[in-house]
Amino acid sequence: MSVVHEHLNESAETTDHELDRVLDAAVAAASAWEDQTPTQRARVLVALADALSAHVDSLVAVAGEETGLPEARLRGEVSRTSVQLRMFAEELLAGRFLDVVIDLPDPQFVLGPRPDLRRYQVPVGPVLVFAASNFPFAFSVAGTDTASALAAGCPVILKAHPGHPRTSAMTADIVTAALAAAGAPAGIFAMITGVDAGVRALQDPRVAAAAFTGSVPGGRALFDIASARKCPIPFYGELGSLNPAVITSGAAAERTEDIAAGFVGSFTLGAGQFCTKPGLLLVPHGSALVARIAELAAEVPAARMLTAKIAQGFRSRLDDVRRVDGVDVLVDGAEVPAGEDGVPSFSPTLLRTNATALLEHAEVLLEETFGPTAIVVEYASVAEVHEILSRLDGALTVTVHTPANPDAAERQELRGLIRVAAARTGRVVFNGWPTGVAVTPAQNHGGPYPATTAIAHTSVGTSAMNRFLRPIAYQDAPTELLPEQLQDANPMGVPRRTHEAGQSQSWGQAAF
Amino acid sequence: MSVVHEHLNESAETTDHELDRVLDAAVAAASAWEDQTPTQRARVLVALADALSAHVDSLVAVAGEETGLPEARLRGEVSRTSVQLRMFAEELLAGRFLDVVIDLPDPQFVLGPRPDLRRYQVPVGPVLVFAASNFPFAFSVAGTDTASALAAGCPVILKAHPGHPRTSAMTADIVTAALAAAGAPAGIFAMITGVDAGVRALQDPRVAAAAFTGSVPGGRALFDIASARKCPIPFYGELGSLNPAVITSGAAAERTEDIAAGFVGSFTLGAGQFCTKPGLLLVPHGSALVARIAELAAEVPAARMLTAKIAQGFRSRLDDVRRVDGVDVLVDGAEVPAGEDGVPSFSPTLLRTNATALLEHAEVLLEETFGPTAIVVEYASVAEVHEILSRLDGALTVTVHTPANPDAAERQELRGLIRVAAARTGRVVFNGWPTGVAVTPAQNHGGPYPATTAIAHTSVGTSAMNRFLRPIAYQDAPTELLPEQLQDANPMGVPRRTHEAGQSQSWGQAAF
Repeated sequence: MSVVHEHLNESAETTDHELDRVLDAAVAAASAWEDQTPTQRARVLVALADALSAHVDSLVAVAGEETGLPEARLRGEVSRTSVQLRMFAEELLAGRFLDVVIDLPDPQFVLGPRPDLRRYQVPVGPVLVFAASNFPFAFSVAGTDTASALAAGCPVILKAHPGHPRTSAMTADIVTAALAAAGAPAGIFAMITGVDAGVRALQDPRVAAAAFTGSVPGGRALFDIASARKCPIPFYGELGSLNPAVITSGAAAERTEDIAAGFVGSFTLGAGQFCTKPGLLLVPHGSALVARIAELAAEVPAARMLTAKIAQGFRSRLDDVRRVDGVDVLVDGAEVPAGEDGVPSFSPTLLRTNATALLEHAEVLLEETFGPTAIVVEYASVAEVHEILSRLDGALTVTVHTPANPDAAERQELRGLIRVAAARTGRVVFNGWPTGVAVTPAQNHGGPYPATTAIAHTSVGTSAMNRFLRPIAYQDAPTELLPEQLQDANPMGVPRRTHEAGQSQSWGQAAF
Repeated sequence: MSVVHEHLNESAETTDHELDRVLDAAVAAASAWEDQTPTQRARVLVALADALSAHVDSLVAVAGEETGLPEARLRGEVSRTSVQLRMFAEELLAGRFLDVVIDLPDPQFVLGPRPDLRRYQVPVGPVLVFAASNFPFAFSVAGTDTASALAAGCPVILKAHPGHPRTSAMTADIVTAALAAAGAPAGIFAMITGVDAGVRALQDPRVAAAAFTGSVPGGRALFDIASARKCPIPFYGELGSLNPAVITSGAAAERTEDIAAGFVGSFTLGAGQFCTKPGLLLVPHGSALVARIAELAAEVPAARMLTAKIAQGFRSRLDDVRRVDGVDVLVDGAEVPAGEDGVPSFSPTLLRTNATALLEHAEVLLEETFGPTAIVVEYASVAEVHEILSRLDGALTVTVHTPANPDAAERQELRGLIRVAAARTGRVVFNGWPTGVAVTPAQNHGGPYPATTAIAHTSVGTSAMNRFLRPIAYQDAPTELLPEQLQDANPMGVPRRTHEAGQSQSWGQAAF
């Protein structure tokens, strides 16, 4: 429906000429989109949400064919995608994202006369979004990166994931039509296809920031390109994560059945293809948990992988892990050969090792395996748990299962454990499982590298908008030249923090 | 006075062994420093501020000898350094930096039951700070980067600038003694010396973030090292900036004398060695301003450069600029040969060109020259001003001088100008000059590359703390295992934003 999209079909890669046109259109549209009031932008986001909801049946049908994911999961994902758009619309109406700070002139300022300074957040400019393989809606064409960048006031160039081309094209058509119908400036959204086009876009000076969800090698290669530009740009990559879970001995004894069922459900969910899949489970040596987990995992039927390429990566990586000395196979998952769609299915493979072997072969075993497998580590002491956690790369999540009523010694032990865990992650989950990331303001879907390439940011929840904003200050501006958000009269009614004159005299004295 | 510092003297470079000890000590101290309450950290910062104030006479005497900067400037800078520390102490007491967000559990959440999620900001870990040449106090050992990192709860490894080694050593001794006296954990501050030690520290996995103020080539080389690490870290570089100033024809006619005097004062301040020096002045063709600026600039006496290396860079760069076709020399600055201290002085050089020549030789003329020189560009039309501004690299500031009572056409013209300017900078200054950066909450000392390597951040003002914080979320944590900042009872009394259950049902409906 868009001018650009008419000339693309899902098998063709975006040409240089097409990309040039897309980027020019994004630059041309940036000011108009920035100039829309937050309320206007919110209306556009809600229109997108409504359009996706209206097309849920056809979207789910196509995505089901392409990804093999079950209908209920796909319906839930379309719903999540719409809700994300609505959530950002609410943020726009609340206005907190503008982070307006006003320092009134202060002739008695402690370092000499202070000018009138007013700061707020403005969009960074056109954002390049690389869609993910494993969420054909929520992290794809109209997913959280697109929604947060559009909300921030940035045009979006969306590099489609080749794993679900028809779903992407259909979503892009819906987005394009809904944007036009809602009166959004032409050029604020376009989809491009092909690795080469994605790389060229990332290198192009017209692109101001990029977001990515995917593998460590792919994400790192793109991060390196973004960082090596003549003018480097922020690259928000959400890459790989082992998501370890620690079962304390108290918890293992109290809730064997719950924990076993919860873990098997979480690591096999979506054929183990979630960035928050718990890939490493630390259980006390001799616990009945291990046998029960193996029983339950053996019952999980084979599930189709998202793409033939991901299946191939899983097979090869699993071979490497199984071959490590000291790793036992508790459940030997089967591969069901590909059918017509060319993509095989796998039932879960469960592996077991101990702390010594794990640390000896850390470079193989402490890496994520994308697919239905996990390693259970039987630990002999809490000291071993500390050592394993402190050897981990950064992770999106660390999960801890605690006893219901810890005694003083157990609480002390837990505090030590949580301290080590917190240093390696962006989210600590208690007595639950990391899959099923809540879309909500306090969420943090982030963490130290390689969980992400930008430790201070989240890609889920309302704070995801911050990735695409930058501050600008106006000094001594005449009122009529100030943005409305910064004018004394506050015609847009945005929340602001104002510092009057005379507050600096006592700085540092308050508590002393 | 510190264990580390005893073994260093200002001429010796930090050895591998010493660096290793410094980094181990920083890592060992990180938890204890993070665990201090904001009030405890605030007390430490105020103790540092008091210690610097108590030693102002000896600090200023040594810095005067080393840098040639006038006493009044140096006293002002020590005062600014103390005030910065006090300002961050106030921020710690206010608690806003924690950015606490609490989402209470919501069984009716629109996407299914929502867990209890609580997020706040924690320190990133040990921070490496590269001190600047041009602010021996305010951007050096105890300067804004050190103050903001310590405030955030991060240990600091300070790479001293070789331009003022005795000042650095004296400041480090004062800081070390004051930290110990205030009961701060040992190891949270250490000074290192030498380029090699700085680079090794930047490559070391124990360092979690880095800050730098200096030249584009130096800063870019360090940014590239930080980005190429196995585990890349945030690198907050404040590099080069041309800081263009635009004089509208109305302003030029109304305030010739004020503008001429203000400009000459700003571009020659501190021998032109400020990151906010206005290096490019756009004036209407035929304005009396040019002659008046030249008269005033010719009267400015020679001033000593900060270091012999900076003087050499200035001389060579000025030669390149003067040699460009279409550039006239309005004031031919003189070099006063170096005295005993080996550092020459220069009186200002003022150059003139037009828009055509400027754009034709943009790769030479649109770069910063660090030192007492500026280029006046006579523009023939507002369109030329737009073209020049849109060709500029990112700048810390853009300055605009406006008529006192602009008519409708002038206001329209100004709005267009400010739009183009705002896209290139982090601060727009009206009817003043960019030097003299106010240390205040609304300040933004930042901007697009190469002004900085991190467009979303400032290195001056209270928001500078954000560079050294990262979010972490706790999901369904038992109260006794939550950080105090996140507990229901809020024993520390920190500001928080709480979302009750039931708020998601109407998301996106509010305004429609």
